[in-house]
Amino acid sequence: MATYAEMSEDQRRAALQEARHTYVGFCEAGLSLNMARGKPAAAQLDLSTPLLTQLSTPEDCFSEDGTDCRNYGVIDGIPEAKRLMALLLDDEPDNVFVFGNASLTVMHDAIARCLDHGCLGSTPWAQLPEVSFLCPVPGYDRHFAILEQFGIRMIAVPMDERGPDMDEVERLAAADASVKGIWCVPKYSNPSGATYSDETVHRLARMECAAEDFRIFWDNAYCVHHLHPDAGRQDRVLDIRRACIEAGNPDRCLKFASTSKITFPGAGVSAMAASTANLAEAKRLCGSQMIGHDKLNQLRHARFLPDADALARHMAAHADIMRPKFELVQHVLGEELDGLGVGCWTDPRGGYFVSFQGLPGTAKRTVALAREAGVVLTDAGATWPYGQDPEDANIRIAPTMPTLDELAQALSVFCCCVKLAALETLTA
Amino acid sequence: MATYAEMSEDQRRAALQEARHTYVGFCEAGLSLNMARGKPAAAQLDLSTPLLTQLSTPEDCFSEDGTDCRNYGVIDGIPEAKRLMALLLDDEPDNVFVFGNASLTVMHDAIARCLDHGCLGSTPWAQLPEVSFLCPVPGYDRHFAILEQFGIRMIAVPMDERGPDMDEVERLAAADASVKGIWCVPKYSNPSGATYSDETVHRLARMECAAEDFRIFWDNAYCVHHLHPDAGRQDRVLDIRRACIEAGNPDRCLKFASTSKITFPGAGVSAMAASTANLAEAKRLCGSQMIGHDKLNQLRHARFLPDADALARHMAAHADIMRPKFELVQHVLGEELDGLGVGCWTDPRGGYFVSFQGLPGTAKRTVALAREAGVVLTDAGATWPYGQDPEDANIRIAPTMPTLDELAQALSVFCCCVKLAALETLTA
Repeated sequence: MATYAEMSEDQRRAALQEARHTYVGFCEAGLSLNMARGKPAAAQLDLSTPLLTQLSTPEDCFSEDGTDCRNYGVIDGIPEAKRLMALLLDDEPDNVFVFGNASLTVMHDAIARCLDHGCLGSTPWAQLPEVSFLCPVPGYDRHFAILEQFGIRMIAVPMDERGPDMDEVERLAAADASVKGIWCVPKYSNPSGATYSDETVHRLARMECAAEDFRIFWDNAYCVHHLHPDAGRQDRVLDIRRACIEAGNPDRCLKFASTSKITFPGAGVSAMAASTANLAEAKRLCGSQMIGHDKLNQLRHARFLPDADALARHMAAHADIMRPKFELVQHVLGEELDGLGVGCWTDPRGGYFVSFQGLPGTAKRTVALAREAGVVLTDAGATWPYGQDPEDANIRIAPTMPTLDELAQALSVFCCCVKLAALETLTA
Repeated sequence: MATYAEMSEDQRRAALQEARHTYVGFCEAGLSLNMARGKPAAAQLDLSTPLLTQLSTPEDCFSEDGTDCRNYGVIDGIPEAKRLMALLLDDEPDNVFVFGNASLTVMHDAIARCLDHGCLGSTPWAQLPEVSFLCPVPGYDRHFAILEQFGIRMIAVPMDERGPDMDEVERLAAADASVKGIWCVPKYSNPSGATYSDETVHRLARMECAAEDFRIFWDNAYCVHHLHPDAGRQDRVLDIRRACIEAGNPDRCLKFASTSKITFPGAGVSAMAASTANLAEAKRLCGSQMIGHDKLNQLRHARFLPDADALARHMAAHADIMRPKFELVQHVLGEELDGLGVGCWTDPRGGYFVSFQGLPGTAKRTVALAREAGVVLTDAGATWPYGQDPEDANIRIAPTMPTLDELAQALSVFCCCVKLAALETLTA
């Protein structure tokens, strides 16, 4: 079969006619489907129902070190919660600071502390004429929103299947002292699903930085979020903190994780791992902001997921629910779009997203067409700083929230809109 | 009986001898007691045990508007939690923003937003050469710690039983545009227990402020924390927001409250009430920091305390536990110290503290002596900005955490140390 671009003008007109006809049919069906955000499905939430009943008496509320988790105190988390979060963060419990229900808040506040107080004695970033961040693209819109709100300049760096373009990252970090950090989703990246290669991790750890207080914001949001329970089909990522220590830059990284997509997105536990110096500074500065986070919820989580085996079993149950959805994405997109030259898409082994790269100039139109037909997608451009994808080509597909039936429908609509937008562009 | 000051030198020497003897006895007893912080006792925490079991099935996890509280979303809180927190905040549910487990965090972050972004279009405070706050004294050490951390200059203003000295507050607010706010604990104030008079509230609301973005940080931490269940023996405070609206300054106040001393200090729910404009700005700025707070905990709280009657009954049970402790403080201090001229103390009708005003120059010594004898008190000076009480006279007594027996012991030690410190000063 010829791609749309290779077709004769008449063939393309016929294809456009057909796509429009199909599209009108979808519009008339009055659908209301959502593939916009990486939200777990209700069936996934049900897996954590036992979390609700871990604590029911006053006696249940004491941590292993005798702390009454109902009362004030323990700013950096109870021991068993540190152990659980250390599993996610691939670090030592002693280097873990347990926070509240959202790693987004932890990351936002970590940047706010850099701005207000600097890092380990450096000038507060807010007092500098310019602060810049490297933003691998496509990336996570909420990371970019934090920087935008604080007026931090974002520099897009392209991603490939091994992580960000390290030649470019090294060049920018070495050349420009205003470059203070980089956002990284190192495993099953949002949205591409790529996992950083060992070389990428080592180069990040050892690269020369013009800013002595350069920080790697290592958002390991999908650390245990595999689509396959067998280890051979799971990605692994080197630990950035160990790499930083080996490279002689022990304070360079701040690692973040949460149970949001493990237990309950709205009521999980988040944490940061970092060097002893970074943690001590965070603890000191956080002392004016908080007395302690929700230790009862920490205790619930630690009792529900007491060790690595329990965690792995729990994540395998998630995978059983998610895997068919990701397989359906590959199947439908393959059936509908293969060979048409209208785009390509990733086939991740974990995480929450498939990244679709359409023809230049078609992403916004595709998303608008889908919305019109009752299917909400992530806004086109959201995967780029300032919401501006210079090629207007990238769309993030989030297949987890709908049921399989809904997802099948939504994907059909999506493919139809991709075709329509491509044909409109090619016949214009 | 003569006061220590009125005694002859010989009489004072004898009294000092006796106090030293008593003190040595306490030291030899090897006590370990704590009256440092306003922590509820275990018996109070037990009152909220039903909170633990409000939610046990997936079906339990839906709010009244159908939100699955396990999943992401709803940045400003579920409707039933807004209603509960509106009861505490004496405001409308529509003007309430529900947050996480700590009002300290909400207040810290509110100030951080003013610094980074200004208020409703004003210059970000961090960009100004100087920012100052009015700090009624004695006051809450954690309020002062936030300001100190952000480099905000603190101006102490004396408190009396009607609230801060309003002549002084009005003078400073009108004269100095760097004065951007005031900390207020309007009801059963920390530590004096004073409740602001109607006149104080109205003057705060209508006073002329050189800074157009002056903000009253209204920390109503003890809003329903009466020591007596009968209304006739409870303080009432006028609502500052209504007063601000009437005075034509609707955006002047930010109100804060939490369930920390109602349910579980470590796992409660906090909230802010403010004008529609202030709330819209907070919601917009918080959008980069959070997707939503712990809605399951919000739901637990709303189900456990569904209305004003349930709340009143619950607080009456707290009062039954706390009242004997506050009565014991009055009794022991009266028995031991009355007539000696070594200090005076408050007799609050609610809240968590008794404020003790000793002779100038004795507070630090008293606290050090008590610590040596195994009784931990709040650090002397903590009730003043920068931890510096210019008279070295004020000590905060927090009688809630110990049992009655422990409290009796701790108070005996405290009184002995007060006498000793006073006599040391007078005989020096």
